[in-house]
Amino acid sequence: MSQLAEQKFISDQDQIEKLDPQAVETLLEKLPGWKVVSVEGVNRLERTYQFDDFEDALDFVNEVGEIAEEVNHHPVIEFTWGTATVTWWTHFIDGLHKNDFIMAARSDQVFQD
Amino acid sequence: MSQLAEQKFISDQDQIEKLDPQAVETLLEKLPGWKVVSVEGVNRLERTYQFDDFEDALDFVNEVGEIAEEVNHHPVIEFTWGTATVTWWTHFIDGLHKNDFIMAARSDQVFQD
Repeated sequence: MSQLAEQKFISDQDQIEKLDPQAVETLLEKLPGWKVVSVEGVNRLERTYQFDDFEDALDFVNEVGEIAEEVNHHPVIEFTWGTATVTWWTHFIDGLHKNDFIMAARSDQVFQD
Repeated sequence: MSQLAEQKFISDQDQIEKLDPQAVETLLEKLPGWKVVSVEGVNRLERTYQFDDFEDALDFVNEVGEIAEEVNHHPVIEFTWGTATVTWWTHFIDGLHKNDFIMAARSDQVFQD
C-alpha cells in the first residue's frame, strides 16, 4: 500500500485513460478497506474511516484536503462526529484511473500517521 | 435569520422535544436556501453552499466545525471542489429541534462572513 502511495501522480490529462475492470480489481486488492461503488454508472473508490470524536475526524479531513491540493485532484468527503468517508474518482473520464488508487493509498497514510 | 442565529442553543436534553410540523414550517421560512429532507423517516435540515474552489469550501467546513464544537452538536458535512452540503438534525430525538435551525442560521452567518 505504501508503495502505491509513493507512485507518481499523473497530471497530464492526455495520459489518463479509464482503467479496465481487471486493473481495477488488481489495484483494489492492494487497498484493504476500500471498495468500488457505482454512482450513476460512474465507478468511485470509497472508504469510511472511524475516529474518536469530531475533532479527530476534522483533522483527518484537513490532511486529506492538503494531499488533494498538492496534486489538484479532489475527493468528495462526507464526515461527522467520529467518521469520515472519502471518495475518489476522475471526473473527466467518468471513472477510475490509477491516480485515484494512489490518492486512496495516500489517504490511508494520512490516517495512519 | 441573524436573530435566529443569536438565539440560545439548548444543551439540556431534558428540554428537547421534536418540533411539530407547523413549527418546522414556520422556522424554515426564516432560512432561505435550506430544505427539510427525510432520511429513513428522520427529518434533517440541509443546505448546499457554493464556493470558488476547494480551499474556500474547506475553510467554510472548518468554520462550521468550530461552531459545532462550541455547542457540542455536530452536522454531517459533505464537500468537494466548490461545494459543501451541511445537514443538521438532533440524533436522540430522531428529528428536528429549534437548535438545528439555530445552527443552520449560524452556518449561514459563517458563509456570509
